[in-house]
Amino acid sequence: MSVTDLTTLKSVKRLEIERIGEGAGTLEDVVATEEPLEVRLAYSRPDGGRAEKSISVTMRTPGHDGELAVGFLYTEGIIRSKEDVESVAPCGPPAPNGLINVVRVELAANVDVALDRLERHFYTSSSCGVCGKSSLDAVAVQGHYDLEDVEFPVSGEQLGALPDALRARQTVFERTGGLHASGLFDVAGQMVAVREDVGRHNALDKLIGQALLADELPLSAFGIVVSGRASFELMQKAMMAGVPLLAAVGAPSSLAVELAEEFGMTLIGFLKRNKLNVYTRPDRVQ
Amino acid sequence: MSVTDLTTLKSVKRLEIERIGEGAGTLEDVVATEEPLEVRLAYSRPDGGRAEKSISVTMRTPGHDGELAVGFLYTEGIIRSKEDVESVAPCGPPAPNGLINVVRVELAANVDVALDRLERHFYTSSSCGVCGKSSLDAVAVQGHYDLEDVEFPVSGEQLGALPDALRARQTVFERTGGLHASGLFDVAGQMVAVREDVGRHNALDKLIGQALLADELPLSAFGIVVSGRASFELMQKAMMAGVPLLAAVGAPSSLAVELAEEFGMTLIGFLKRNKLNVYTRPDRVQ
Repeated sequence: MSVTDLTTLKSVKRLEIERIGEGAGTLEDVVATEEPLEVRLAYSRPDGGRAEKSISVTMRTPGHDGELAVGFLYTEGIIRSKEDVESVAPCGPPAPNGLINVVRVELAANVDVALDRLERHFYTSSSCGVCGKSSLDAVAVQGHYDLEDVEFPVSGEQLGALPDALRARQTVFERTGGLHASGLFDVAGQMVAVREDVGRHNALDKLIGQALLADELPLSAFGIVVSGRASFELMQKAMMAGVPLLAAVGAPSSLAVELAEEFGMTLIGFLKRNKLNVYTRPDRVQ
Repeated sequence: MSVTDLTTLKSVKRLEIERIGEGAGTLEDVVATEEPLEVRLAYSRPDGGRAEKSISVTMRTPGHDGELAVGFLYTEGIIRSKEDVESVAPCGPPAPNGLINVVRVELAANVDVALDRLERHFYTSSSCGVCGKSSLDAVAVQGHYDLEDVEFPVSGEQLGALPDALRARQTVFERTGGLHASGLFDVAGQMVAVREDVGRHNALDKLIGQALLADELPLSAFGIVVSGRASFELMQKAMMAGVPLLAAVGAPSSLAVELAEEFGMTLIGFLKRNKLNVYTRPDRVQ
């Protein structure tokens, strides 16, 4: 397969602002770029012909767009491995600001595309999707990997060092204060990849997308650290990628805890240098 | 119209956790509840008959579900005023945990429903939606109100007091550290309403929904303060509600700044007690 990605040159924008109060005056500031990214999918129809469809628009920070697109397709259950992807490339003429905001993903001929999976987020059927069901049933969680028996022994010290390690590699955040980050670390606590985005789900999709393109899924020998809170959505993406442990600098939600419990994942919240909370499967933390 | 809303009793969940490091041990903790909310819409078909459809599922913190549903319908451009809504009520049997996770909104008979507007977030057409367009054009921003000439004179001192005022009314955040908040304040800097949610867009939809149900739209005599960052999505919702000023405790994104500029709104970021940044229309801040 071939991959062409955009550079990250356009991840910040310079502008003039007014500061009121301490240090008042007109000054130059940089903000994190937020632009729409459209994902176009080329795939085989059941009758054997090829079809092409625009399947999503997400607001993202430009850079690693190809990773974002395939990471999104993977965590939504549309593709299963690198072999499913024929090519990933920017598509169409640039917007007036010079950015290309469309990525085209061409799937291999033998991939069965379950586009109805995407409609989980956007029901248009007349059936009642959530009524009377338990929440995890309602949102139709389907695990790719059983994580119950995956070993991932880490120490509190290793975990406590992650927020600083993540921050040190957040080059765009440093300048704008406006980006979420996701980091992938190994069982020795070494950070092996970091991705940033205005959307925390995008940062994680980029991280998982780079692993998919490197043919490294499932990520059962890795943990994930996120700069913000642990929502259901982030937990589900980590679970889809086969990650046994997710550590968040912020608070977890109730459904993130329930999902972690259901799939045997370790969920850590309020991660600081000198303390942390373990919400599920504390046996992995020494 | 009639409105029945759920109480906020289920906004937190109690559980047992392991603390590692400082204060180590097993302790009781509370996390913010995150559960899916399905919005069902009953409306008139073009042929005069009635139809009912499930149009979205969002992950939210239970409480103010009716406000969330109508706020979402309003900021997505599906409804325009309180008169468009016949009734709002929880619907169907509760989930096993006792929560009702479905809200049914019945629209008045004369409302033309443009359901295709909802598909802005989820293209399934074969046309290329974003290619070569400017970002604001691509995401199809349509202002309800021209805010260019709206007066809203506030002082730096009034603005600087907002984060503490917001925090003081964040009852659930206080206990969980896991919720975003949106607050509505008047030209004297008085906070008039606050809503919380695990999703920042939900907190703002709830705030706008309560204003719609109180028949107070457009909110041209009010500003909005948000606990986190200012994204394009939050800015667009504020613009749809006719709010001339949005102040964020965190950083703004580039597209939030562009939208504010386009529609004559004042955008404030990094709001602190003693300083703040004004990104657009500084003339409203004394």
